[in-house]
Amino acid sequence: MISNPIARAVRGSARCWRHRAVFNGLPVSSSVSGWRWRSAPTRRASSAMEELLARVAVPLPSYETRDKSPPPPESTSLEFMNFYRGLEKEDKAGFLSRLSQDCGVDHRAVSDLAAKLLDTQRRDQATILQAEDRLRYSLTPRYKQLFSHVSRVPGGVKFLVDLRADLLEILATKASDSPHIRDLNSTLKSLLSEWFSVGLLRLERITWGSPCEILQKISQYEAVHPIRNWTDLKRRVGPYRRCFAFTHGAMPGEPLVVLHVALTEDIADNIQSIVREFATLDAEEDINKINSAIFYSISSTQAGLQGVELGNYLIKRVVRELQSEFPHMAQFSSLSPIPGFSSWLQGLLSQYRKEGRGSDLLSEQEWAEVEQAVGSNPGTPAADSLRKLVATGEWTRSEKLSLALEPVLMRLCAWYLYGEKRRGFALNPVANFHLQNGATMWRINWRADTSPRGVANSCGIMVNYRYFLNETSRNSALYLQSKAVAASEQVLGLVSQFQKNSKL
Amino acid sequence: MISNPIARAVRGSARCWRHRAVFNGLPVSSSVSGWRWRSAPTRRASSAMEELLARVAVPLPSYETRDKSPPPPESTSLEFMNFYRGLEKEDKAGFLSRLSQDCGVDHRAVSDLAAKLLDTQRRDQATILQAEDRLRYSLTPRYKQLFSHVSRVPGGVKFLVDLRADLLEILATKASDSPHIRDLNSTLKSLLSEWFSVGLLRLERITWGSPCEILQKISQYEAVHPIRNWTDLKRRVGPYRRCFAFTHGAMPGEPLVVLHVALTEDIADNIQSIVREFATLDAEEDINKINSAIFYSISSTQAGLQGVELGNYLIKRVVRELQSEFPHMAQFSSLSPIPGFSSWLQGLLSQYRKEGRGSDLLSEQEWAEVEQAVGSNPGTPAADSLRKLVATGEWTRSEKLSLALEPVLMRLCAWYLYGEKRRGFALNPVANFHLQNGATMWRINWRADTSPRGVANSCGIMVNYRYFLNETSRNSALYLQSKAVAASEQVLGLVSQFQKNSKL
Amino acid sequence: MISNPIARAVRGSARCWRHRAVFNGLPVSSSVSGWRWRSAPTRRASSAMEELLARVAVPLPSYETRDKSPPPPESTSLEFMNFYRGLEKEDKAGFLSRLSQDCGVDHRAVSDLAAKLLDTQRRDQATILQAEDRLRYSLTPRYKQLFSHVSRVPGGVKFLVDLRADLLEILATKASDSPHIRDLNSTLKSLLSEWFSVGLLRLERITWGSPCEILQKISQYEAVHPIRNWTDLKRRVGPYRRCFAFTHGAMPGEPLVVLHVALTEDIADNIQSIVREFATLDAEEDINKINSAIFYSISSTQAGLQGVELGNYLIKRVVRELQSEFPHMAQFSSLSPIPGFSSWLQGLLSQYRKEGRGSDLLSEQEWAEVEQAVGSNPGTPAADSLRKLVATGEWTRSEKLSLALEPVLMRLCAWYLYGEKRRGFALNPVANFHLQNGATMWRINWRADTSPRGVANSCGIMVNYRYFLNETSRNSALYLQSKAVAASEQVLGLVSQFQKNSKL
Amino acid sequence: MISNPIARAVRGSARCWRHRAVFNGLPVSSSVSGWRWRSAPTRRASSAMEELLARVAVPLPSYETRDKSPPPPESTSLEFMNFYRGLEKEDKAGFLSRLSQDCGVDHRAVSDLAAKLLDTQRRDQATILQAEDRLRYSLTPRYKQLFSHVSRVPGGVKFLVDLRADLLEILATKASDSPHIRDLNSTLKSLLSEWFSVGLLRLERITWGSPCEILQKISQYEAVHPIRNWTDLKRRVGPYRRCFAFTHGAMPGEPLVVLHVALTEDIADNIQSIVREFATLDAEEDINKINSAIFYSISSTQAGLQGVELGNYLIKRVVRELQSEFPHMAQFSSLSPIPGFSSWLQGLLSQYRKEGRGSDLLSEQEWAEVEQAVGSNPGTPAADSLRKLVATGEWTRSEKLSLALEPVLMRLCAWYLYGEKRRGFALNPVANFHLQNGATMWRINWRADTSPRGVANSCGIMVNYRYFLNETSRNSALYLQSKAVAASEQVLGLVSQFQKNSKL
Repeated sequence: MISNPIARAVRGSARCWRHRAVFNGLPVSSSVSGWRWRSAPTRRASSAMEELLARVAVPLPSYETRDKSPPPPESTSLEFMNFYRGLEKEDKAGFLSRLSQDCGVDHRAVSDLAAKLLDTQRRDQATILQAEDRLRYSLTPRYKQLFSHVSRVPGGVKFLVDLRADLLEILATKASDSPHIRDLNSTLKSLLSEWFSVGLLRLERITWGSPCEILQKISQYEAVHPIRNWTDLKRRVGPYRRCFAFTHGAMPGEPLVVLHVALTEDIADNIQSIVREFATLDAEEDINKINSAIFYSISSTQAGLQGVELGNYLIKRVVRELQSEFPHMAQFSSLSPIPGFSSWLQGLLSQYRKEGRGSDLLSEQEWAEVEQAVGSNPGTPAADSLRKLVATGEWTRSEKLSLALEPVLMRLCAWYLYGEKRRGFALNPVANFHLQNGATMWRINWRADTSPRGVANSCGIMVNYRYFLNETSRNSALYLQSKAVAASEQVLGLVSQFQKNSKL
Repeated sequence: MISNPIARAVRGSARCWRHRAVFNGLPVSSSVSGWRWRSAPTRRASSAMEELLARVAVPLPSYETRDKSPPPPESTSLEFMNFYRGLEKEDKAGFLSRLSQDCGVDHRAVSDLAAKLLDTQRRDQATILQAEDRLRYSLTPRYKQLFSHVSRVPGGVKFLVDLRADLLEILATKASDSPHIRDLNSTLKSLLSEWFSVGLLRLERITWGSPCEILQKISQYEAVHPIRNWTDLKRRVGPYRRCFAFTHGAMPGEPLVVLHVALTEDIADNIQSIVREFATLDAEEDINKINSAIFYSISSTQAGLQGVELGNYLIKRVVRELQSEFPHMAQFSSLSPIPGFSSWLQGLLSQYRKEGRGSDLLSEQEWAEVEQAVGSNPGTPAADSLRKLVATGEWTRSEKLSLALEPVLMRLCAWYLYGEKRRGFALNPVANFHLQNGATMWRINWRADTSPRGVANSCGIMVNYRYFLNETSRNSALYLQSKAVAASEQVLGLVSQFQKNSKL
Repeated sequence: MISNPIARAVRGSARCWRHRAVFNGLPVSSSVSGWRWRSAPTRRASSAMEELLARVAVPLPSYETRDKSPPPPESTSLEFMNFYRGLEKEDKAGFLSRLSQDCGVDHRAVSDLAAKLLDTQRRDQATILQAEDRLRYSLTPRYKQLFSHVSRVPGGVKFLVDLRADLLEILATKASDSPHIRDLNSTLKSLLSEWFSVGLLRLERITWGSPCEILQKISQYEAVHPIRNWTDLKRRVGPYRRCFAFTHGAMPGEPLVVLHVALTEDIADNIQSIVREFATLDAEEDINKINSAIFYSISSTQAGLQGVELGNYLIKRVVRELQSEFPHMAQFSSLSPIPGFSSWLQGLLSQYRKEGRGSDLLSEQEWAEVEQAVGSNPGTPAADSLRKLVATGEWTRSEKLSLALEPVLMRLCAWYLYGEKRRGFALNPVANFHLQNGATMWRINWRADTSPRGVANSCGIMVNYRYFLNETSRNSALYLQSKAVAASEQVLGLVSQFQKNSKL
Repeated sequence: MISNPIARAVRGSARCWRHRAVFNGLPVSSSVSGWRWRSAPTRRASSAMEELLARVAVPLPSYETRDKSPPPPESTSLEFMNFYRGLEKEDKAGFLSRLSQDCGVDHRAVSDLAAKLLDTQRRDQATILQAEDRLRYSLTPRYKQLFSHVSRVPGGVKFLVDLRADLLEILATKASDSPHIRDLNSTLKSLLSEWFSVGLLRLERITWGSPCEILQKISQYEAVHPIRNWTDLKRRVGPYRRCFAFTHGAMPGEPLVVLHVALTEDIADNIQSIVREFATLDAEEDINKINSAIFYSISSTQAGLQGVELGNYLIKRVVRELQSEFPHMAQFSSLSPIPGFSSWLQGLLSQYRKEGRGSDLLSEQEWAEVEQAVGSNPGTPAADSLRKLVATGEWTRSEKLSLALEPVLMRLCAWYLYGEKRRGFALNPVANFHLQNGATMWRINWRADTSPRGVANSCGIMVNYRYFLNETSRNSALYLQSKAVAASEQVLGLVSQFQKNSKL
C-alpha cells in the first residue's frame, strides 16, 4: 500500500480517531487502543509508589508562608516523571488512582475553614475576604502543586499533556472511575487550559519550505483525508491551498491543531476536487479566482488536550489571516465529513428487519425502486437488502440504484445531522464542533466524497458548515444555551421531507 | 551627558529602581513615579464604568453549564482594554477599585455552599468531592474569568502585565488599599504565574548579532550598572561576557529578565574591571582562562511581574547553559551592589550626633584616626563629620582616610548585610534575592565599585553571593524556613568584629 | 513501486547519470536524453534569431570608452532569456551555433592588434603592456559580454547554468561540433567558474529540520543509492549520518553538490549496513563509537556546472567541519560504487567467445570450477557462460559459484580500477574523481553492495578511496602530472595476481 | 561631542570620504589617510618577498594541461595572505610593485603566439580560433591565477577587496605608478566585477529588528548625513523611511552599499525635515501620504570596490522593491549634497581679489547690496569680503545678506553643477554618479541643508536628481556617449542667468 512509507516513518500507531475524541467531547472508545488497565498495582510496586508520592507530592505550605516557600529542586519533578514513564501501562491506572486519592485536598481542613467562614458572615468585609481566601487556598489539591512544579522542568508540559491522555483513556475504559480520578482530570484540564491559552499559542503557516519534521507530522496527523505521499503533501501546502497550525513554546516543533484550507471560486461540494487535483501544483494563484476559503480538514494532535479549546480559535485566527491576505474574500465554509452516518443508518435499518420494510424511512414507491434495482430477492426483507447495500457500498456501482437512493439518503442524512442528539446537542461530533463555533449547517452534498472511505462512512455525502462572520457569536451562544441549530433552507427542507414520512 | 543619546532613544522614563522592586518583594516607594491617584472617579466616568463592567465582567456560568458556555466575542475583551487604556491615570485607581468590589465572588453563594459542604461531611466521598468542587467554583471571582478572556486576545497578556503594574503602584502609593484590591492583585498575580511558568519561557542568548530592538532594550533596562554607549553595550555581549534573557511567546521581542555574566579566571572583586575594560573587545576567548562565571547584573523589566519568580530560574538555567559550554567551570558567583548601605549608615550616624561619637560603632582609636584625618573641627561632633564624609564621598580622595575607614566600613557593611532584617529576612533586597536562591554570602570587597554611584550607594563596597550548586537547595530552604543565612568565614569574621564593639 | 511517490512529486526526469557526467569529465552519452537536435533552424526562425542577436549581442565598446559604457537595460537581457527559453529544443542548437559564430571576436581587429604588438617589442614596457592589454580586450568575444549582462538579471545565473547544460548535450550528441561552439562552451565554463568560485559557496548541513523543499531535492538528486521513501530519507539525515550541500546565493534553495557521510567505528565495507540500517533511527550518537567518516554518496545536481570543481572542495570543507565537531576523528574514506565494471567485464569476456576460454583471465582450475558450478553445457563456450552469469547476476544465488568467482572478480576489478585508462587517467569516472582529489585506492570490498543494482553494475563489489589528509595534495599532483595512482597493498596485491595470468 | 559614543564603538578611522571616492571615479586624495608608502623594501624583506612569490605565484600550467592541473593546497594561499597582512604599510607598495612586475604575463610567449596567430590568417577557422585561444591564455597574468586561488579560501574575497583598497591608495598617492601596477589594479578590478556581479548580490532591507552588528555598520558608514545617536539611527529605519543594502555571500554581515530612502508626499527640498524630524517615530505609515521616494543618502563601504558598479544597481533594485510595495508611487528623486561647491566658489572669488570685484559673477547692484550688508570696509576688496563670508558661513546669520546672496549663489551653483566639467563629465562627483545612472538634474534647493556642514560645503544648497523611469536608459547613454546633461527648466534657467553675466 502506497501510504505505508510515510506512515511507517513515524513511530506510534494510527491516531485517526483522535480528532473525533477532541471534537465530540466524548471519551475514545476502549476498542481503539487495546490497552488493558490493571485495577490495582502489585504490592511491591504499591509500596514504591507510596514512598515516591510521599516525597514528591508534599503538603502545601501553610497559608501564611505560601509566598515564602521555595519550590522543590528540579530533581524531584524529574524523579516523578521518570517513575511514571517507567511504569507498565497497566500500573499507571493504579498509580493515578492513588495520586488522586492520597494527594487531593485535606477534607478536614476544608470543612474547618468552611465553618470559620460561616462564623464571619456578620463581620466586616476584610475578614470575610480573608476567610474566603483561606478556604480557597485549602481547596487546592496537593497534586495541583505537584503538576505546577513539573511544568517548570524541561519537557514537563509535554509530560503532563501525555499524562492527561492516559487519564482520559482510563476514564474511557472504565479502568478506574472514582470521583477522585475525575477531579484529578478536571484539575489537570484547567491547568492545561491556562498554559495553552490562546494568547500563548503561535499561528504558523506551513509551506513547502517549512521544516521536513513539521511537514511529516502534518502528514501523519491528517486524520480526515489521509495524505498518501509527497505529491499529496505538496498539494496541501501548494497554490490555492493554505495550511495553518497552532504551536506552543513549551512543545517546539509540535503542531497542536492543524487546519487545511482550499481557496476556491465557489463553496466546494466535492472533496476529491480538492485533495486529488494536481493540475495547479505549479500554478501561480490567480487572485480573481479566490472568493471562498474552504476548511476541508482540521485535526487535533494531542489527545491530552481534549476539551482545551484550540480548533475553534484556530479557525477564527485563520479567518483573520485570510481576510488580511484577501481583503475581498467573503465566503468561509467547511467541507466536512459525516463520520457515523452509515453506522447509524445500518442500525436503523436493522430494526426494520422483521417488518421487512420501514415504511417511515422510505415511501412505498422508493422501496419498490430499491427492490427493483437490487433485483428482488424473495427470501430477504427489503430493509435487510438495503442495509447490506449500504454496508458494502455496492449501490454506488449502479447508476439506477444511486438515482433511487439519492433523495432517501439525503433526507436521512439531514435528519441524522440535524435531528439526532446526545444530551440535547448534535450527536455527530463534527456537527457539534462547528455548531459550537457558531457555524450554520449550510448544504448537504451528494457524491461529495467518492473515496471508498467516504462511501463507507457516510454514503459519499459531505456537509458544508458555513461561517457567516457576523452571526457566529450569536449562533454559538444560542446553540450552547438553547441547543438551537442554525441551518439553511436546503437542510431544513430535507429535514422536513424526512419528518413527513417518519414517525421517529 | 554622554548617556543621553541612548536613553533618549527609548520612550518611557527611568526604570532604575524596578529591579529593586522585584527583588525585595516590596512595593516601590511613591516618590518614584510621581503619579497622583484620584480616590474616586467623576460621576460621569463612574456611570460609564458601571455600564462597561456590567457588560464585560458577566457572572460566571452556573456550575452545571460551565463547560458548555461559549467565551464572549473578542470584541468584548478589546472594548475593556481600550476603555482602560483610555482612562486618565488618576481614574484607573477608581476603576480598579470598582472592578475588585463589584466583580469578585458572590459571598452569599459561597456561604450557602460552605454550609452545604458541612452538611455532607457524613456522606460518601463522591458527595463530599462534589460539594468541595462546587464550593471551589463559587470562590472564583468574576474578574478572574474576565482576565482569562482578555489573555486570549492579541496583546492581552501584555495588557494584563501592565495593568498589574498599575495595581502595584496603587497599592504602594496607598491610592487605594482595600482588601478587595489586594485580592484582585493576588488573583492576577497567580494567573500571571501560570502564564509565565518557567516551562513557557524561552532562554535567549543575546549577542552583537541579535536584533537592535532587543539590544536597545537590554541597554535601557540595565539598572545595575548603566550602559552609556554602543561600546559599553558591545562589551557586554562580546568575548568573555554572556548575556541571557528569558522571553515569552505572548510578548515577542520583549526580554523579561536579563542576566549579564562575565567569564573570568578568579571570582571577580571589582566591577570596573568588568564593565570598563575594553582590551578584550576583539579578543578570541581563551578557554583556559575561563574558570568562573560572575553574575554582575540582573534586571527585571516588567514591573507587573513582581513576585512571579523569574530571576531565580534564569540564574539556574544559565548555570546549566554555561556548564554545557564549559564542562569544567566550577565557580559561580554574583558580584552584587549593596544599595542602601550608605543611607543606612548615615541614619545610624545621625543618631549619634548629640553624643558626639558612637563608641559602639568605632573604637576610640578609630575615632581618633578619623578626627585626625579630617582635621578636627572643634564645633562639629565626630559622628557628624563622618556622616558628611560618607554623604559626599570625599573620604575617597584621602589615602589616609581610606585606610582608616576600611576596617570600619567593612565590618559595618558586613553587619548591614548579615544582621539587619525586615520581618526576619535580610533587609537588603539584593541579599534577600540571592539568599532565597540558596547562595552563600561569600566575600565583601573593598574598592569594588569606585564609580561615583558605587561610592554614593555603598562606599564602593560590593559583595559576592556564591552559588555552590550542590548546596543551593538546602540553603534556600533553610533561609526561607528558618531564616538562616549561609555565610563564609570572611563575612562571619567581619560580623563578629562588629559585634564586639556594638551594643546594637 | 514504492519509490514512485517521492520521485513523482518532483517534475523533471531521472538525473541518475548526472553525477557520472561530472565525475568523469566526459559528455553524457546521447542515449541518455533522447533529444534530437536539428542542425539548422527554419528560415523564419533564422531571421528572428539574427534580428535578436543584432540587438542583444552588441559589439564591445571601444577600448577607450570601455569603462564609460552603460550596461544595456535589463529588458534586453530578459528578452534574450525569453527568446531562448521559447525555442523548441531542436532549434536551440542552431541558435547557439549562430551565437558562437556571429558573436565571437573580431578576427580582423585581433590580428591587427597582434601585429601592432609585434611592432612594439623594442619599445618601452609601458607601450608593450598597453599593446598587450588592447590585444587582450580584443580577444573578448561579444557573447561573453552578453552573458555578463544576463548574469545581472534575477534568475540570470541559473539561466546560464541551464544553457550550458544544453551546450554540453549538443556537444555530446554531435548535434553541433564546430570549434566555435566549443569556444562558446569554454568561455561560459570559465565565467561559471568565477561565479561559482568556492569562496562564494555556502556549506549547509541538511537535517530533518531543513525545509522540505530542500530535502525533497536531496532525495531526488541522490543518484548513487536511490532514496526510496521518507524513512530512507530520515535515515540519511539522522544520527550517525551527516548530509552536507553547497548552495549559492544566486540559486537559492538549490543544493549544487550533496555529500552523504556515515559516522562509523571502522571503515565501512558494506553499503547496506549504511543505507538500510534503521536500528539507530532514534538513537543518541555515542561519540566513542565515531572514529571514521565514510563518504558514501556524492551527487552533483547541475549538469551545466560540469567541469566546475565543486565536489572536491565539498569533501575538503566537510572534512574540516567534521574535524571541528569530532577533534579525534582520524579516518576519512569513501565507500564508492564501481559503475561500468560489469559492462567492461562482459566486453572482455565476449572477446574470448571464439576461443572458448580466456586462459589469461581465469586459471585452468578456475575455469574448471566455474564449469562445474554452472553445470557444463557442452555447446556453450565457458567464457560465454560466465558472461551470461555476470549479465544476469544469477551467480549470486549459488554459494558455490560465489566462492569460485570471488578471487577472479576481485582481481579483475582491481585491474579495472587500477589498470584501465583513458588518456592515461583512470577509466572509471569515480576512481578518476577521487584520485584527482588525492585519495588512495585503499580497499576493494566483496559483497559490499548486494542490491540488484549493485550486483548488476559491479558484481556487488565496492571500493574505499581513503583520504589521508597529509598526503592528498601530493597524491593529487602526482596523479594529475605523472598519472601515478596511489594504492594500498591490498589493491596492488590483487593487481599483481591479475597481471601474473594476463597478457593484457 | 555627542556622536563620539557611536563612532568610537567601531575601530578604524573615518571613512566619510569613501563614497566620494567611489562616485567620482577619482582616487582619494593622499591627505585623507596619512599613510606614507616607502618606495622600496629593505633588502632583507626583499629577499623574503622573492622567495614567497616564487612559491605562491607559480607559472600557469601549459595550455594543454590547463584543465588537468590541481589547484595548490589552501595553505599556499593562506601563507600569501598572512605574509601580506604582516607587512608594514610602507612595505606593501614595494611588494605589490614586485608582484605586478615579476608575476605578470610572459611577454616573450605572448609575442611568439601573436606571431603565430598572424601566420594562421589564411588557414581554416578552427586553426585561427585555436591560435586566438592560445594567445588569450598566454595573456593571463600569473597574479590573476594567484588571486583566483586566494578567492577560494575562507576570507579570501574580503582580503582581495582590501588589497585593492591598498592598490588604489598607492596609485592615488603616487607611491608607485608604474604601468605594471596599473595593470595589476585593472586585473583585480575585473575579477572583483565578476564576483560582485549583481546577480550574486542580495538586497536586504534594514530595520530596527536587524542585527545590531549590521545597524552599527550602517551608522558608521553613513557618510552623507552622519548619524549621531540611537534615535537618529532608529529614525532612519522607522516609519516613512526605508534603508536597503546589498550584501554578498562571501562577506557575510557586511553591507556593501547602503541606500537611505524617505517616503514623502512631495519631492523633498530640505534634508533636516528628513533626518531631524522625529514626530513620526512611532507613527503608523499613512499610505495616502506616500507619493515620492527620496534617496537622501547613498554610501559605498568598500574602498576596494571602487569602479565596481553597485550604487546604480542598488537604486534600480530599490525602485522595483518600492514599486511592488507602493504600486501607485510615481516620483523617484534624490536629495543630494553638493560637496565641493563652496571650495570651487572660494577659488573663483580669490581670482578676483586684485580686481576688487568680479563683475561677471555679481552684477553691480548685487555687489552694492553685498557691500552694504557687510558694512563696507574700505581696505578690503568686495570679492575678498564675500570669500570670507562664504568661508565662515557668517552670512547665514543676516537675513539681509541671505536675501541678497540667494539669487547669486543659486545661479553660481547651477553653473557649478551643470557647467563645470572634468574630461567632459560633470566635475561634481555626486552629479556625475546620478547623471551616469540616467537621472535628470531637476531642482536646486535654497536653504536645503542648514546644518553647519551643509553651509560649509555648499552654502546650504542641495539638489534633486530625479529618476524618470522611462528615460533613465536613454539619459544614461546620452550622458556617457555624448556627455549631454539632462536638466530641468529651473536648472537651465539659473544656468542661463549665470551665463548672461559671466565671461567664463
